[in-house]
Amino acid sequence: MPAVHKILLDEALQDSPQTRSLLSVFEEDAGTLTDYTNQLLQSMQRVYGAQSEMALATEQLSTQLLEYQTQNFALGQGDVEVIGILQDFSKTVVELNALHSELATMLANGMVFPMVTFREKDLTEISTLKDIFSIASDEHEASMVKYSRLPKKRENDKLKAEVVAEVAYTRRKQHQASMQYYCSLNALQHRQRAAMLEPLLGYSQAQVNFFKKGADLVSKKMDSFLSRASSTTQSIQARLEWETEEMRATQRELLSVEDTVYTPDLDRDPPTARSYRGPATSTSAIKRA
Amino acid sequence: MPAVHKILLDEALQDSPQTRSLLSVFEEDAGTLTDYTNQLLQSMQRVYGAQSEMALATEQLSTQLLEYQTQNFALGQGDVEVIGILQDFSKTVVELNALHSELATMLANGMVFPMVTFREKDLTEISTLKDIFSIASDEHEASMVKYSRLPKKRENDKLKAEVVAEVAYTRRKQHQASMQYYCSLNALQHRQRAAMLEPLLGYSQAQVNFFKKGADLVSKKMDSFLSRASSTTQSIQARLEWETEEMRATQRELLSVEDTVYTPDLDRDPPTARSYRGPATSTSAIKRA
Repeated sequence: MPAVHKILLDEALQDSPQTRSLLSVFEEDAGTLTDYTNQLLQSMQRVYGAQSEMALATEQLSTQLLEYQTQNFALGQGDVEVIGILQDFSKTVVELNALHSELATMLANGMVFPMVTFREKDLTEISTLKDIFSIASDEHEASMVKYSRLPKKRENDKLKAEVVAEVAYTRRKQHQASMQYYCSLNALQHRQRAAMLEPLLGYSQAQVNFFKKGADLVSKKMDSFLSRASSTTQSIQARLEWETEEMRATQRELLSVEDTVYTPDLDRDPPTARSYRGPATSTSAIKRA
Repeated sequence: MPAVHKILLDEALQDSPQTRSLLSVFEEDAGTLTDYTNQLLQSMQRVYGAQSEMALATEQLSTQLLEYQTQNFALGQGDVEVIGILQDFSKTVVELNALHSELATMLANGMVFPMVTFREKDLTEISTLKDIFSIASDEHEASMVKYSRLPKKRENDKLKAEVVAEVAYTRRKQHQASMQYYCSLNALQHRQRAAMLEPLLGYSQAQVNFFKKGADLVSKKMDSFLSRASSTTQSIQARLEWETEEMRATQRELLSVEDTVYTPDLDRDPPTARSYRGPATSTSAIKRA
């Protein structure tokens, strides 16, 4: 705990130049703190924003995965294997999404909210009290002007009494206002320290909770998914390579024919060209040969 | 593994209407798959985008925290306690940020990239081969038209020979093109299944890695930070309450004075009003009284 500086309330009434200059030091610090608070709050809101976007994006992904089964693939219909994996995976993404949303909420409540409160409540209070103080000072000054213009002579007691009362009244008012202002500037020295730490506590608690639940989730769900999905992928790859090789062979074979296969039969009426049916007629001709 | 449908390459030469209608079924599925792939890719890119924004936001936060010590607080200078906590915390946020960046990279390489490749390579190949096939069909049709217009008579053998050769050439070309097109449509049946699973594997591996390292980090770093920072915060709060109470008491006491304290001394020259110095003069008057 560092030596915390203070403006002594006892100085409020005398309101000396020394007190005023100490006051200006406190005011400058409050200004610096306000600027820094705004920048820090901005960074925190950016983190929160990224997190809630992540929650939305994850949600969209899980929905998108489920829509695979609703695509009207005429051929892939029966693919229960891939569809099943996608469904399971989508479920896991939904659970992951729940964690992301929870993290976003915890960041909002534990990190952004305290920072906003500090700015809206404590820092605003300071500037309000500053205004009240300067108004009170002006009023007191005005009454002092009246007082200084009072005629020396012993007449006009009623008027004098009034002015004197006004001076007393405004002076008390200024005294109160300055003390309240001093109090909140002194308190700010402590509030500032707490205000810097509180959001970090919120941030940390949110992260700890997120990572612990997340590690638990992935070790339970995704590890098994990984082994299952990767084995399926491998078998698909193997099947693909085998099929590809087979098709390549068939293709080679089918293409290694004589040109006669492609040659129209000159002894017959020339086949009438009917778009793609052309080759068909010619092959039937070949068959008959 | 569902029964995977095929277009038989042997049908390519005959190119019958039955083959054509089966072909159109494969083509429709390829179209559906392309649309779905684009939507899924969009969701995946959104997840990636959110994650890299999170990495940037976390980085900004860690920098912002370090800047607290560079603020020229005239009063809070010696606050090594809070500054120390902020520095430690910033270090942890930097490590957290490294995990976020790593996750973003893994999502880009393991999830987005395979999906993009599938779209750019496999799906594009299909549409290219489709074009080549239809061009070859047109060329063959054109040559068949020439052939059908050949004069019956035995004259002009040279011309006939040329046309016949052209028919044979274009027919072989169409045969090759259609078989290649069939092959890639057949292969797509397998590639589609793999293409749906591969990005999910990448996503899962990235998440597993992220959460395991993250849980490790927070349990090592943040748990200790939490206890330290929260105890500091509590002591600050306690100190603040104590100070506040004390100031309130002083304030009450200082305000419970007679109005005389605020009343200018009528027997003296009226103090000249000089802005805030006003009260100062009057109090000095009181002191002498």
